Amino acid sequence: MSAIRHALSIKREDDFAQWYQEVISEAEMAEESGVRGCMVIKPWGYGIWERIQRLMDDRIKAAGVSNCYFPLFIPLSYFAKEAEHVEGFAKEMAVVTHHRLVGDGKGGLTPDPDAKLEEPLIVRPTSETVIGAAMARWVQSWRDLPLLTNQWANVVRWEMRTRMFLRTSEFLWQEGHTAHADRDDAMAETLRALEMYRDFAETDLAMPVIAGEKPENERFPGAVGTYSIEAMMQDGKALQAGTSHYLGTGFAEASGIQYQDKEGAQQYAHTTSWGVSTRLIGGLIMTHGDDDGLRVPPAVAPHQVVILPMLRDTPDDEALLAYCEELRKVLAGMSVLGEPVRVLLDKRPGKATQKRWAWVKKGVPLILEIGGRDAAADQISMLRRDKLWNEAAKANFQAMPQVEFLTRAAAELQELQDALYVEAKARRDAHIAQVSSFDELAAFFAEDKRYPGWAEVEWSRPTGAELEEVVQKLKAIKLTMRNTPLHAAPAAGKCIFTGRLAVERIYVARAY
Amino acid sequence: MSAIRHALSIKREDDFAQWYQEVISEAEMAEESGVRGCMVIKPWGYGIWERIQRLMDDRIKAAGVSNCYFPLFIPLSYFAKEAEHVEGFAKEMAVVTHHRLVGDGKGGLTPDPDAKLEEPLIVRPTSETVIGAAMARWVQSWRDLPLLTNQWANVVRWEMRTRMFLRTSEFLWQEGHTAHADRDDAMAETLRALEMYRDFAETDLAMPVIAGEKPENERFPGAVGTYSIEAMMQDGKALQAGTSHYLGTGFAEASGIQYQDKEGAQQYAHTTSWGVSTRLIGGLIMTHGDDDGLRVPPAVAPHQVVILPMLRDTPDDEALLAYCEELRKVLAGMSVLGEPVRVLLDKRPGKATQKRWAWVKKGVPLILEIGGRDAAADQISMLRRDKLWNEAAKANFQAMPQVEFLTRAAAELQELQDALYVEAKARRDAHIAQVSSFDELAAFFAEDKRYPGWAEVEWSRPTGAELEEVVQKLKAIKLTMRNTPLHAAPAAGKCIFTGRLAVERIYVARAY
Repeated sequence: MSAIRHALSIKREDDFAQWYQEVISEAEMAEESGVRGCMVIKPWGYGIWERIQRLMDDRIKAAGVSNCYFPLFIPLSYFAKEAEHVEGFAKEMAVVTHHRLVGDGKGGLTPDPDAKLEEPLIVRPTSETVIGAAMARWVQSWRDLPLLTNQWANVVRWEMRTRMFLRTSEFLWQEGHTAHADRDDAMAETLRALEMYRDFAETDLAMPVIAGEKPENERFPGAVGTYSIEAMMQDGKALQAGTSHYLGTGFAEASGIQYQDKEGAQQYAHTTSWGVSTRLIGGLIMTHGDDDGLRVPPAVAPHQVVILPMLRDTPDDEALLAYCEELRKVLAGMSVLGEPVRVLLDKRPGKATQKRWAWVKKGVPLILEIGGRDAAADQISMLRRDKLWNEAAKANFQAMPQVEFLTRAAAELQELQDALYVEAKARRDAHIAQVSSFDELAAFFAEDKRYPGWAEVEWSRPTGAELEEVVQKLKAIKLTMRNTPLHAAPAAGKCIFTGRLAVERIYVARAY
Repeated sequence: MSAIRHALSIKREDDFAQWYQEVISEAEMAEESGVRGCMVIKPWGYGIWERIQRLMDDRIKAAGVSNCYFPLFIPLSYFAKEAEHVEGFAKEMAVVTHHRLVGDGKGGLTPDPDAKLEEPLIVRPTSETVIGAAMARWVQSWRDLPLLTNQWANVVRWEMRTRMFLRTSEFLWQEGHTAHADRDDAMAETLRALEMYRDFAETDLAMPVIAGEKPENERFPGAVGTYSIEAMMQDGKALQAGTSHYLGTGFAEASGIQYQDKEGAQQYAHTTSWGVSTRLIGGLIMTHGDDDGLRVPPAVAPHQVVILPMLRDTPDDEALLAYCEELRKVLAGMSVLGEPVRVLLDKRPGKATQKRWAWVKKGVPLILEIGGRDAAADQISMLRRDKLWNEAAKANFQAMPQVEFLTRAAAELQELQDALYVEAKARRDAHIAQVSSFDELAAFFAEDKRYPGWAEVEWSRPTGAELEEVVQKLKAIKLTMRNTPLHAAPAAGKCIFTGRLAVERIYVARAY
C-alpha cells in the first residue's frame, strides 16, 4: 500500500504549533496584518466567525437578552475607580492620548501637542465599567430587573506574545452583561450562559467541553465565581473556550447600580458577565484539523457543499455548468441542521484538482466533482472531508447517481457533524487520567511525554496562601488547574496537594 | 373636534433639532454615554441597525463580495504615506501612544512612560490604507481580480460637534473595498454599490434618495469620482446617506497593489470603496418620524407587530395570555416582505395604555390590544402606526375578528411599507424647486423661510478656482451642492453661477 501524501507539509505529531500556523495559512483563514499583535481575518476565517455569531446570537436572543452597543473608549478615571476595588487589575491596554495629527516638519506626521486629551481614553479591554455606568442610569426599581444586555464588539488587550485566533491584541467577541435583584437570580444567569456555551460548543462546533468552576486563583478580577468551558486540543493542552462570571455586588457598588426593592429599600444589584471570542476558531482548528488541513463541522461551515465542475475550456463546459447550477439550486432548496444547505458552485478558472485540494485544506464538509461525462450520465463524485483517503491512499471519491446523492446529502452532513464530535470526545476521554498523588501527576506530565492530556485529581479546595503554594508548585512543572466540573461524582479520597480530605475534583493540564 | 394630544412634547414644525433629540430619547434608541462624542445604542436603536446589517449584508454577499476583518489600529506611517499623495487629508483622529497604565502615586492611574509606543497607532477613521496593504499581498495576477472585500466595523473620527447617529466620534458602518483590472470594471463596481444603496434606501428604509455624482470639491480625498445617495429630511435639509468612490490607481500606487496582466506587464489596480453607517438611522428618524415619535418601516422594524394583552392582575389573565400566545405563534409562522413576521408578545407588568404609547413612540408598525372579552369573542383591536388618530382625535383602533386580522396582516405591513415611501417621496418632490438664477436661489433659501427644501439648478461644472468661488458663494448663504443626478434630463440653459452654457443639473441645499 502506497503512503498517503497529505495536503499539509507539517504533521500534527511532528510540530503541533507549526502545524497550527500552516492550517491557518493554507486554509486562508487569517494572516499577520503588519500591525503589531493584530491579524487580518480572511473570508474563510471570517465566514466561520459569522456562522458562530449567527448561531450564538440566536441563543442569546432566545434567552431574552437584548443587544446594545457601548463606546469603544473608556475614560481612564473609570478604571481608576475599578482599580480601587480590584487587586491584580490588568493594565496592558491601548491608551489614546491625542486627537489630532500634524505635520512633523520633516514630511511626516506626529501627534499634535495642542490636541492632547485632558483625560486619556482607554480602548476597551472589556466593558464592565462603561456598561456599569449605563446600568446605573437604567436601573431604578426592582421592575427594571433583570436587565439583560449583550454586545458584539472588538476589544484590545496589549499582548506581548501573540498567536493567531488564540491571543491577539485586538479580538472580536460578545460580552453579556446582566443585572439582577439577588444572588440566586444572578447565579442562575451565570450558569445559563455557561450551559449555553457548553451546548453551542458541543452541538455546533462539535467540540466536547467540560463546564465547571475555575479555582479561586483563576477568577476574573473582582468576580465572586468564574465558570468556564474547557476543551482539549489534539496536543493534549486545555483551551479555555468561554467564561461566565458571577460578580456579586462589587461591580454594582463601584458603578452605583442600585434599585428600590418592593419594600422601598435601596439595594445593590448583583451582576454577571460572560463572553466567547474569535478564540473559538483556534479551538475549532486544534480540535478538528488533521494533516490535510481544517475540517469544519457543517453547522459552522460557510459552505457545506462545494461543487467543482471539471472545466476543460471547451464548448462542452456550458452544458456542464448548467448541470452543476441546476444541482446547486436543488441543494440550496434543501434543509440540513435546521437551515437551508449552504452550497457553492466554484466556477473560477483553474485546475479542478488544485481547487479540490484548496477546499480540502479549508475543510469543506462535502466536495462534489463533476465532469462532462458525469453530467451526461447524471452522476456525481462525492468526497467527504472526514473520509478523505481510500485504502489505495487516493482521494476517496464515491461515484453515485445524482438522485442517490440528493437523498443522502442531508444525512451525510449530519453524520459528519456527529462523527467529528464523537471522534473528538473519544480522544479527549482517552487522554484524561485519574491521578491520585502529586508524584503521579508529575510523572503523567513528564517532559518526554508527548501530548499527555489532562489529569483529573481530587483536592481540598485550599484558599489563600495554601492555594498559592499549590499554584506555584504546578507552575514549576508548567501546569495549571482548569476547572471543577459541574455535576461530577463527589470526591472520595485525599487531596493530592494538601493530603487533607478532598472535597471535589479538578482538572490539571498544560494550557493555551 | 377636539385637538390631538401628541405623544411627544416637541413638534417638528416648532423645533426640528429638539424634536429629533426627543424622538431618540423617547423611542429609547440611544443616549449620551458619558464618553465624549460616543453614544450608547440601546436595544431599539441597535435592533434597527441589526436589521439594516442583515438586509445590506445579504445584498453585499449576493454581489460576490466577501466579508473580512482588518485591524482597528493603523500605524502612523501608513497615513504619512497617504498624506504625501492626498491634499486635505483629515487629521482629527484618535492617537494611541502608550500600551500600559501604572499607578500615578496618588491612588489613580496614568499612561506608563516606559510603555510609550515607538510608532503611534491611529484608531481607523476608514481602512483604505490597511486594506490596501493587504490587497498588495493578495493581488499578483489578473486572475486575482476583481478582489471584492467588505468589513462591518467601528471607526473613529474626532468630531468637535456631535449629534446622535448623524455625527459621532465613533460610529458603526460597513466599508467595501475592491480592486479591479481596469477603469471600466472599477467604475461598474462603484455604480453597482451606489445602486445597491439606492435600492436598499428606497425598498427597505422607504427613504427616497437621489443617486448621483458629488461635485469635485466634495470628493473623498484622493478619489477620481465620488457618488452619493442624498435624502431630504423633513426640515428640507439634505442628508448624505451613503457614498461610493472610484479611486483610480492613486491608492493602488500608494499601497503597491500591482498585478501582472495577460501580456505579462505589471499594472496598477483600479480601486473603489463604498460605505453606509449608523447615520442611516438618523435619516430614518428624520424621514419617517412624526409628532408621536418614530415610524419604522416594517422591513427594518425589530418587531413588526406587538401584542399587548390588557392584563388586570386577575386569574383571567391566564386565559388571555394563552390566547395572545397562540396568536403570536400563528403570526410568527406567517411571512411578509419575504421573511417570517417579527412579532412580540409584551407580557411585562404595567398599564396597557402606557405600554401602548411607548410602542407608538418607538414606531412599531402594528399594535394589537386584546382584552379578556376580546379574547373570549375572538376579537382584536389593531392600531396602525401611520393611521394613528381618528376624527375624534383618539387612537384609531380598529376592532375586528382575529381571523380577519390574520388575512389582512401581511397586506397591512406591506401597505405601511409602501405608504411611508409614497408619503416621503411626495413631500420631497414637492420641496424641490427648479431655480434658474443665483438671486432666485438666494430668495428660495431666504432666512425667514422655514424648511424650504432643495433647489435643482443647471451649471457648467466649473473646476479649480472657478469652482472654489461657487463653493464660497454658496457657503456664505449656508448652502452646499449635493449631487448631479444620474439619468437626469440634459441641461438646456445657462449655468446659474458662471452664466456659461450649462452641462448638467445639480442639487443645492442646506445639509447635515
